[in-house]
Amino acid sequence: MSKLRVAVLGAKGRIGSEAVRAVEAAEDMELVAALGRGDKLETMVEAGAEVAVELTDPGSVMGNLDFCVRHGIHGVVGTTGWTDERLAQLRGWLDGSPRTGVLIAPNFSIGAVLTMRFARQAARFFESVEVIELHHPNKVDAPSGTAARTAQLIAEARREAGCAPQPDATATGLDGARGASVDEVPVHSVRLRGLLAHQEVLLGGEGETLTIRHDSIHHSSFMPGILLGARRVVTTPGLTFGLEHFLDLD
Amino acid sequence: MSKLRVAVLGAKGRIGSEAVRAVEAAEDMELVAALGRGDKLETMVEAGAEVAVELTDPGSVMGNLDFCVRHGIHGVVGTTGWTDERLAQLRGWLDGSPRTGVLIAPNFSIGAVLTMRFARQAARFFESVEVIELHHPNKVDAPSGTAARTAQLIAEARREAGCAPQPDATATGLDGARGASVDEVPVHSVRLRGLLAHQEVLLGGEGETLTIRHDSIHHSSFMPGILLGARRVVTTPGLTFGLEHFLDLD
Amino acid sequence: MSKLRVAVLGAKGRIGSEAVRAVEAAEDMELVAALGRGDKLETMVEAGAEVAVELTDPGSVMGNLDFCVRHGIHGVVGTTGWTDERLAQLRGWLDGSPRTGVLIAPNFSIGAVLTMRFARQAARFFESVEVIELHHPNKVDAPSGTAARTAQLIAEARREAGCAPQPDATATGLDGARGASVDEVPVHSVRLRGLLAHQEVLLGGEGETLTIRHDSIHHSSFMPGILLGARRVVTTPGLTFGLEHFLDLD
Amino acid sequence: MSKLRVAVLGAKGRIGSEAVRAVEAAEDMELVAALGRGDKLETMVEAGAEVAVELTDPGSVMGNLDFCVRHGIHGVVGTTGWTDERLAQLRGWLDGSPRTGVLIAPNFSIGAVLTMRFARQAARFFESVEVIELHHPNKVDAPSGTAARTAQLIAEARREAGCAPQPDATATGLDGARGASVDEVPVHSVRLRGLLAHQEVLLGGEGETLTIRHDSIHHSSFMPGILLGARRVVTTPGLTFGLEHFLDLD
Repeated sequence: MSKLRVAVLGAKGRIGSEAVRAVEAAEDMELVAALGRGDKLETMVEAGAEVAVELTDPGSVMGNLDFCVRHGIHGVVGTTGWTDERLAQLRGWLDGSPRTGVLIAPNFSIGAVLTMRFARQAARFFESVEVIELHHPNKVDAPSGTAARTAQLIAEARREAGCAPQPDATATGLDGARGASVDEVPVHSVRLRGLLAHQEVLLGGEGETLTIRHDSIHHSSFMPGILLGARRVVTTPGLTFGLEHFLDLD
Repeated sequence: MSKLRVAVLGAKGRIGSEAVRAVEAAEDMELVAALGRGDKLETMVEAGAEVAVELTDPGSVMGNLDFCVRHGIHGVVGTTGWTDERLAQLRGWLDGSPRTGVLIAPNFSIGAVLTMRFARQAARFFESVEVIELHHPNKVDAPSGTAARTAQLIAEARREAGCAPQPDATATGLDGARGASVDEVPVHSVRLRGLLAHQEVLLGGEGETLTIRHDSIHHSSFMPGILLGARRVVTTPGLTFGLEHFLDLD
Repeated sequence: MSKLRVAVLGAKGRIGSEAVRAVEAAEDMELVAALGRGDKLETMVEAGAEVAVELTDPGSVMGNLDFCVRHGIHGVVGTTGWTDERLAQLRGWLDGSPRTGVLIAPNFSIGAVLTMRFARQAARFFESVEVIELHHPNKVDAPSGTAARTAQLIAEARREAGCAPQPDATATGLDGARGASVDEVPVHSVRLRGLLAHQEVLLGGEGETLTIRHDSIHHSSFMPGILLGARRVVTTPGLTFGLEHFLDLD
Repeated sequence: MSKLRVAVLGAKGRIGSEAVRAVEAAEDMELVAALGRGDKLETMVEAGAEVAVELTDPGSVMGNLDFCVRHGIHGVVGTTGWTDERLAQLRGWLDGSPRTGVLIAPNFSIGAVLTMRFARQAARFFESVEVIELHHPNKVDAPSGTAARTAQLIAEARREAGCAPQPDATATGLDGARGASVDEVPVHSVRLRGLLAHQEVLLGGEGETLTIRHDSIHHSSFMPGILLGARRVVTTPGLTFGLEHFLDLD
């Protein structure tokens, strides 16, 4: 079987260099180009790249994807900064190249994606749901974007199912003890030296609790999702937003 | 809206008496009969029961269900001891009463059911999967039936997906350290005073782990599942095996 | 060996009735009196009680202890509401009965006492320390008294050791996400159906974390501490405040 | 205040190079020598080293320490392979240099040291104690040395306190489910991609459990212990075995 020919854009960044190693280590892939800032995109065409893993920055990503789509190179995109306008523009380009596929994923960690999905599915069966996220102390935002997104998905699922408000008899206490409220789901942020990125969704009903916990201890946790994305995007024309669509979870 | 008319069979048992309380407390239900050993099944008919919650024992369950199905009373069954023969017999009865439904569930804890489902779904995305179950020290079997079943589901999902064997470089050690092997999934059993019934599925991939944990601290954890079963079985003719089919998980 | 003769005051309360059972089940003890509201204290003397387990209420405790000390009956006290004045008064009584001992403990759970002690001991070795407490949703205060006390002990130990402030780069976020600040130790309160009383102290340093977690799933968790207190108080004259003094932890 | 003058031996190894960085980053220390294989030990003397951090191998450590002690340079030793003979020889050298101190530590992670200590202290207060250790799947031994040592300390403490055997009604099951028995303490070994080194001690009594968990996600977790050792060894003549002796834990 011929190997999948993969290019990496942003190959010198922290995640990009990890992606270079991961592609090289994958038995079913061949790394045909590894481009950094200033390198020519044409190199991908000359090398016969089938998929480009795009790990650059919001200032470069649109130009890179325009080039890829025009040349029929599929894209697996980890770069952030997506707006409705940008997505519409990308969809326009893909309309003109109907066999090309692009996957954009806000999070390539399969564990994080499954955590959000399971939390959303389980949310309506329990009276209580809270989210605890734990990160290294250099993180500037609290709660994390992933935790806020998880809480929103939980709240949405509970609204749709017509769940009652969460029980909470708290009458006295200290400000902040009960966490931040994201769509009425309490979210607690721990900042601790010795951690990287962790999230726990706690769901409680009569006599029982269900806990879904994701621990990421190295940014290499993005690699299995990136490789899975590359394998699947070549047979999935058009725009796919979110790795979960490639996980065949039903 | 009229209330659902519910009977409880085995109403004096540990779980049965809990079910009596739960039905009484449910705003959309009315407890119309609570039968113990020796009480007449006809009471259910006289009381106009629509659903019978069957929590007796393997020696009584078939007679009880025969009666229920003949009288068009739906069944929610927690009693164990089901064999292929018994299921075939029950299906025969239900064929003769095409509007009646029976739900049999090996486990009415929604948390336990979701844990198994999520474990099965996630299993193929990770290199490593192990199960830890933790129970009170009076438990006679190790591993627990639920843990063994969970491991089988995990193994099945991995076989279907063509996963590689789990990595394990263990070369020296003590017997038992790596747990029991259930279909090549390691299962570890902890027995500790102060616990009731707990299970943890650990899944690990490059740089990340996903943990799904279920803690049951009181047998009241079966009640939400029993009530949900009663509400749904009245519109689900025929035999349903496993609470998961009533959870609408996609 | 003769058995320790124990009386229980407040024997019909939730904890008291549990204490009655625990004393009856202890092989080295004999329950000689179980008094409820209105029962005569003299019963203890007639029954030859050596120790009284006092589990009544702040309105009764002083009268009961006055009686006990005057009759040379040792006390193990779980009733709350202690002020400096009350402690001084009790000490006065004990001065007049130099062989009698009284143990007052704000918490008889050995797990809770050890959690606080270990947290205090470990606190100065780590850059970061946070507390998460998790309780059933009917609890009215947040954070719990135990969590607040634990955080104070941690803060005290860090001040004494001259620890630097905890690292925390949080610059943007939602109110409450970082928890309540108790002496600059973040405390997070989770309220979840299906829980009873749980507390987790997280300590983090370069590349590692230490977690000390206490789970209480039944109020019977107070019994081993009460029995231990009864065994020890008979040879410990005077007032002892806190179960930790009976644990011989160096 | 003058800075502590520190040399690192084995400076090019994985832990050694980390130690070099840690010493350089410490405000109260100055790195005065970083020696690899073949470098001259005299360099330490010329550089005025007060402490040598010894992170080489069992074949080099005795020669290095002989040199250090003769020159009055204190030692902080992470190299393994210590036998009674070697310890006796080192003590002999130290007798001849009564102001010099050497700290040998099997484990420089403060979290691991505290976990063992707390487990040992708590062991006698609970009916049940088990150990779960979790590591990456490339580890060749199961259980880990640290887990086996922890179990031995627990067993020792329980024997000294006269604890009853652990309750365990297991009558049927699969081989290995109940883990390995180390001095009758069950030890369970999990091997999971995405983990580094983790250990959990579970203690259970009536209605409650206490869990002490240590997570190490990077070998930099040894650095705070090495630095603490260097600061303390200069005022602690003679041989100290085990970092716990420098933690002033009562």
